[in-house]
Amino acid sequence: MSKLTVLKVGGGIVEDEAILAILLDQFATLPNPKILVHGGGRTATQLAEQLGVEAPLVEGRRITNEAMLDIATMVYGGLVNKRLVAQLQARAVDAIGMTGADLNVIAAHKRPVKTIDYGFAGDIDSVQTEPLTILLNQTYVPVLAPLTHDGKGRLLNTNADTIAAEIAQSLATDWEVHLVFCFEKQGVLLDPSDDESLIPEITHAAFQDLQSKGQISGGMIPKLTNAFSSLRQGVREVCICRYDQVHSLYTPQYLGTRIH
Amino acid sequence: MSKLTVLKVGGGIVEDEAILAILLDQFATLPNPKILVHGGGRTATQLAEQLGVEAPLVEGRRITNEAMLDIATMVYGGLVNKRLVAQLQARAVDAIGMTGADLNVIAAHKRPVKTIDYGFAGDIDSVQTEPLTILLNQTYVPVLAPLTHDGKGRLLNTNADTIAAEIAQSLATDWEVHLVFCFEKQGVLLDPSDDESLIPEITHAAFQDLQSKGQISGGMIPKLTNAFSSLRQGVREVCICRYDQVHSLYTPQYLGTRIH
Repeated sequence: MSKLTVLKVGGGIVEDEAILAILLDQFATLPNPKILVHGGGRTATQLAEQLGVEAPLVEGRRITNEAMLDIATMVYGGLVNKRLVAQLQARAVDAIGMTGADLNVIAAHKRPVKTIDYGFAGDIDSVQTEPLTILLNQTYVPVLAPLTHDGKGRLLNTNADTIAAEIAQSLATDWEVHLVFCFEKQGVLLDPSDDESLIPEITHAAFQDLQSKGQISGGMIPKLTNAFSSLRQGVREVCICRYDQVHSLYTPQYLGTRIH
Repeated sequence: MSKLTVLKVGGGIVEDEAILAILLDQFATLPNPKILVHGGGRTATQLAEQLGVEAPLVEGRRITNEAMLDIATMVYGGLVNKRLVAQLQARAVDAIGMTGADLNVIAAHKRPVKTIDYGFAGDIDSVQTEPLTILLNQTYVPVLAPLTHDGKGRLLNTNADTIAAEIAQSLATDWEVHLVFCFEKQGVLLDPSDDESLIPEITHAAFQDLQSKGQISGGMIPKLTNAFSSLRQGVREVCICRYDQVHSLYTPQYLGTRIH
């Protein structure tokens, strides 16, 4: 099986021009096939504020009402996605920007209302691997925004980490998939304030051990839980690393966390 | 050669939900291969007003400054484009939303500054037919926003009529291209206020005759001039018709203007 890189880049990187340039330079050096999945960052929230649109917070979670969905569609599906595409084309990467609605790549449904109505948040039903495979085989590089659709004409807001993981898992039957989460930190750290405390490799047993000792920071737990779940679904390897380590992913010089 | 429909739909139609539904229902019935090109309409101007962004007017023409380019990218490349894609998918049309940057489909350059600096307005250099042909042969339906790119990482604002015409001309070597301009009027009218005054067919000689007699309204002259130019570049036929005549394009029941 050929190697396939699915790289997820967070909103913090996408919004910093200098950092984004480093990430894109390095992403351009990775061999095909490859897929980029991006988050949105604070631009959507800022635009909402400028427009006087309020996204209601329920139990600490932001609700996607209709006005917020339009803003997400503009910012994630338009501004962020198309800028990434144009900047990748400038680096000779034949990028094609997509949401889950394009070629019906990611079908989802509006999250069912139990105690909370999350609004237009989409839970993924399925990933259609055929159109992705056709694009990848042409050495086109899909750039995916964190939006899905319900097949009835409605776009839905979906978490970028989840999209990256679902895409990676779905393609794992045909490719040797390396799922990479790229952010500002060196990787999984024992002490979040100390880059020297990087954990270069984590097994499932080690994760459970660290978690039981309270040695893994809160934000990292869902990321790692998802990583182990992706591995169980056939993904070869999950990497968590800083934006400037992407060029070394497949070398012994790689500095970051590997999970397998 | 197989028939290919390149249909351009104006901003006025895209912004009216009920009218758009009729257009998309009818577009869905057209045989593959087909391409949809859309304009932007007033949403971008409204968003600019809400955000307090002013697009300078020079000699009656709106200048695309950086803030307006971002708004165009959000509205045309995001909101309008992705909604169209989701609504076409709901009609079983396997749509893929694109700008000229995606797969490097339309390369352009910033309009040179002579007396006026039009800002980030893009004049088209070339259309890459290969990726479009690959998509069309998969029965994918490209949905093109009025944005191009300069190959150096910069998106550019480009008129949707021009994009439709350039796409149609470029694909005319491999397909029998029918270029359709869809709007709210019945077609080319002798009297713009009277739908009964429809001119069903126009030859170049008849156009010159009508123009010399002042019988063609100002707004229609550039459209017709471009139509004849497209025909000279190999396009088989140009149609100008109302949004509810799309289903009858290839039948004798078609009510609208045909130019060939």
